[in-house]
Amino acid sequence: MKIIILGAGLVGGPIAADLSKDKDFSITVADIDKDSLENLKNKYDIKVIKKDLSYSDSVRALVKKYDLVVNAVPGFMGFKTVKAVIEAGKDIVDIAFFPEDPFLLDELARKNNVTAIVDCGVAPGMSNIFTGFHEAEMDSLSSVIIYVGGLPEERKLPFEYKAVFSPVDVIEEYIRPARLVEDGKIVIKPALTEPEYINFEGVGTLEAFNSDGLRTLATTIKAKNMKEKTLRYPGHIEKISFLKELGFFNSDKVNINGTEIAPIDLTTKLLLPEWKFNPGDTDITVMRVIIEGLKDKKKYRYTYDMFDKYEKKSGIHSMARTTGYTATMVTRLLSKGLYKKKGISPPEFVGREPGTIDFIIKGLEERGIKFLKKEEKI
Amino acid sequence: MKIIILGAGLVGGPIAADLSKDKDFSITVADIDKDSLENLKNKYDIKVIKKDLSYSDSVRALVKKYDLVVNAVPGFMGFKTVKAVIEAGKDIVDIAFFPEDPFLLDELARKNNVTAIVDCGVAPGMSNIFTGFHEAEMDSLSSVIIYVGGLPEERKLPFEYKAVFSPVDVIEEYIRPARLVEDGKIVIKPALTEPEYINFEGVGTLEAFNSDGLRTLATTIKAKNMKEKTLRYPGHIEKISFLKELGFFNSDKVNINGTEIAPIDLTTKLLLPEWKFNPGDTDITVMRVIIEGLKDKKKYRYTYDMFDKYEKKSGIHSMARTTGYTATMVTRLLSKGLYKKKGISPPEFVGREPGTIDFIIKGLEERGIKFLKKEEKI
Repeated sequence: MKIIILGAGLVGGPIAADLSKDKDFSITVADIDKDSLENLKNKYDIKVIKKDLSYSDSVRALVKKYDLVVNAVPGFMGFKTVKAVIEAGKDIVDIAFFPEDPFLLDELARKNNVTAIVDCGVAPGMSNIFTGFHEAEMDSLSSVIIYVGGLPEERKLPFEYKAVFSPVDVIEEYIRPARLVEDGKIVIKPALTEPEYINFEGVGTLEAFNSDGLRTLATTIKAKNMKEKTLRYPGHIEKISFLKELGFFNSDKVNINGTEIAPIDLTTKLLLPEWKFNPGDTDITVMRVIIEGLKDKKKYRYTYDMFDKYEKKSGIHSMARTTGYTATMVTRLLSKGLYKKKGISPPEFVGREPGTIDFIIKGLEERGIKFLKKEEKI
Repeated sequence: MKIIILGAGLVGGPIAADLSKDKDFSITVADIDKDSLENLKNKYDIKVIKKDLSYSDSVRALVKKYDLVVNAVPGFMGFKTVKAVIEAGKDIVDIAFFPEDPFLLDELARKNNVTAIVDCGVAPGMSNIFTGFHEAEMDSLSSVIIYVGGLPEERKLPFEYKAVFSPVDVIEEYIRPARLVEDGKIVIKPALTEPEYINFEGVGTLEAFNSDGLRTLATTIKAKNMKEKTLRYPGHIEKISFLKELGFFNSDKVNINGTEIAPIDLTTKLLLPEWKFNPGDTDITVMRVIIEGLKDKKKYRYTYDMFDKYEKKSGIHSMARTTGYTATMVTRLLSKGLYKKKGISPPEFVGREPGTIDFIIKGLEERGIKFLKKEEKI
């Protein structure tokens, strides 16, 4: 099977490398950056194509010759790229995490007989798969809570935080109001609110706060209460709120001695060196998903814990591992015909199908990413 | 006696008002701001002159007709103004707190037979007077520690701080290295260092840190150890250090999408509304001076505590009360011939003269500013 990965970046690279190890696959990666491509080509059995993927025409023409597409372009060009692939009539697994509503492409995908699985990372991604699985196997869901955070392994003050994304994207998470489901209704709460401390084995205490991470779950899943909270080392909220309250995240320009400037632009400039992962900096990913509901008229709680670390041997970040390998396992699922639903599928649709969750978890475990599952009668 | 006050601002106004109540004085105030002058003229027996005091010629001509001058202009024009008054041959009491070394004017003042008392506020000011007094009455000083802070009465997060000065002047205190005396030598330490918590009756716990406030004491007083520390509500250092470490206090310009900007300029702009005293906001002043030394071969410790509040009746800020009334009492001292030394006198010189400290403390007590003195044999 011929698979093309669009984007040879931090996640696209490890996706290509992982898929290239399957005998059944012939892997090609397309990107505008020559160095990233050369690097992959030298290390793995991968073909490379240097291509600017910001043109829909090019994307449509490019993917024609392949059986399956994995989309790992930056978020801001994600929606456009998925659309072009669907237009070309190709199945796609997407981890661009674009801000647009993917269901806007549902009709087009059905019409073109395409399976398009979006948001295929860890959270969104695995969190959706767990939720979809339990929605299907239980009578009803009463509560879904997702805690997730990508963090530096080494805690360095003042922030004890680093990001593989740009500061402006991180700050966007701290500004954008969070959509939660309470009592069956969507409610909006400010980001950074409802802080709580939670202990994680091997990590210690982390701080959780509301963030806008439910995405498709808010509308596809029937549960009385649903929320996603971001995890950081304790004290993060206070520092971020401090800058936010003082106006350092404002986009409205202020006049400084005749010069107009948006405070957020200076702030992201100053935070970039603080938050950047430098070579040798290692990361961890922490996730806990708690799903409660009724099964055979009894109340159950299912808890999934995941704690993953940077992989020393390969130098692959935990964020890339957890995101990328979820995408590669879903790609394998698709290639084997184990998931066939046409149209747009967020991962909760995949989780609903019998057998998919075991297939994906087994693949992730083989790659060192383990989920600790706990079942409680409550 | 004809006295002119240069500057009708936050401190100049209350100085003029206080002096105008003495039968022996005829009070005139000069300022460029018409409203401030009108306000004083309407309330008190005060003559006013509208004048731009930034020209030395004008100042020299202006003060000729008066017997005594009180200098309450902003710090950046303080040195120039004191010089002009000395050139005009007039005695002066100064609370401009200018950054230049006042002793540069000593020769000129002696030549012109002028008494010029500088830094005549609370700290510098009263702290110097206490130090000078004990230096004169004891055999030797081993330690002088001055804690001082002007704070808002109401503690509002995130800063629990407000200033009657501009944010840029406050931040300057947080950037400028502090000069301390240790083991008889002047040592330089970064600002905000050596934090300690201290309890003050009626206030609670405050946080103290090194600041560059010894000024003339560093060279005029012989003591083994001397330091001045600034007082804030606890947590202030951490917040200020946070902004400082991230680069928000930097003066070096950074390029933001083609626009050059100094981070400090944006920061002071954003902090101005946070730190500004608005009408109705009340302030407090807290000071503790601890002086140790030998007297008759025995070790003594003297502690002076002061806690002053905004005066509701008059609407005069505590900062203006404590600074201004020290200056008016020193002015009275001068007018009565109780201090006659020619040349530049920082307040420690005044404190050395017998009787001066009692005269000043009595006057401050009559104005509601009380010092609690404690003597201990150690």
